[in-house]
Amino acid sequence: MSKSAKSATKAKRVGVRAYDSHVFVCSGSVCKKRGAKDVRKALKSEVKEAGLRREVRIDSVGCLGLCKHGPNAIVYPSGTWYLGLKERDVPEVVEGHLLGGEPVARLAADFR
Amino acid sequence: MSKSAKSATKAKRVGVRAYDSHVFVCSGSVCKKRGAKDVRKALKSEVKEAGLRREVRIDSVGCLGLCKHGPNAIVYPSGTWYLGLKERDVPEVVEGHLLGGEPVARLAADFR
Repeated sequence: MSKSAKSATKAKRVGVRAYDSHVFVCSGSVCKKRGAKDVRKALKSEVKEAGLRREVRIDSVGCLGLCKHGPNAIVYPSGTWYLGLKERDVPEVVEGHLLGGEPVARLAADFR
Repeated sequence: MSKSAKSATKAKRVGVRAYDSHVFVCSGSVCKKRGAKDVRKALKSEVKEAGLRREVRIDSVGCLGLCKHGPNAIVYPSGTWYLGLKERDVPEVVEGHLLGGEPVARLAADFR
């Protein structure tokens, strides 16, 4: 078996969890200054409180650009960009989007 | 207008690009040691070469776990986890998945 086929076989044996939502909170320096850490902390806490710890994964992502609008975050698989996501907006995102399954139109950025 | 409504209005005026694919390459310390930087570099270069620079976004993500299988990466919106993604596998992912639209079954992890 080739080295490459071996590594693929190994990968396939490792099961990954199928999350309902995967949230990426920008950890760029500007977003950090604008409160991204508090937003992430609030997300983690609200997600836990909503009983979604196994359904929702929250990670930090490198600079997403659009720095001056931060703190920014993206939720997949919907591909929703939340720009200027404040700590106070987090419960609405958790309830409406992560629990309810619908991006929060009031907070979601439009696509060009 | 409330402060919160103002910030939402501002976010909505900023257009974000609708990418076909968004790749998150793990930048955790173990994945880094296992070559994640080279994988990311190869991805950027191959994506550019394939003329997909506007269609595909590549970012770094904080530790995704499953460290011993790294370098790891996820591609959205399909939510495909590639574990143990080697530099030599990158052309196949770019051609098959990012250009062709189909996750590369040989390299994609199964879901539990």
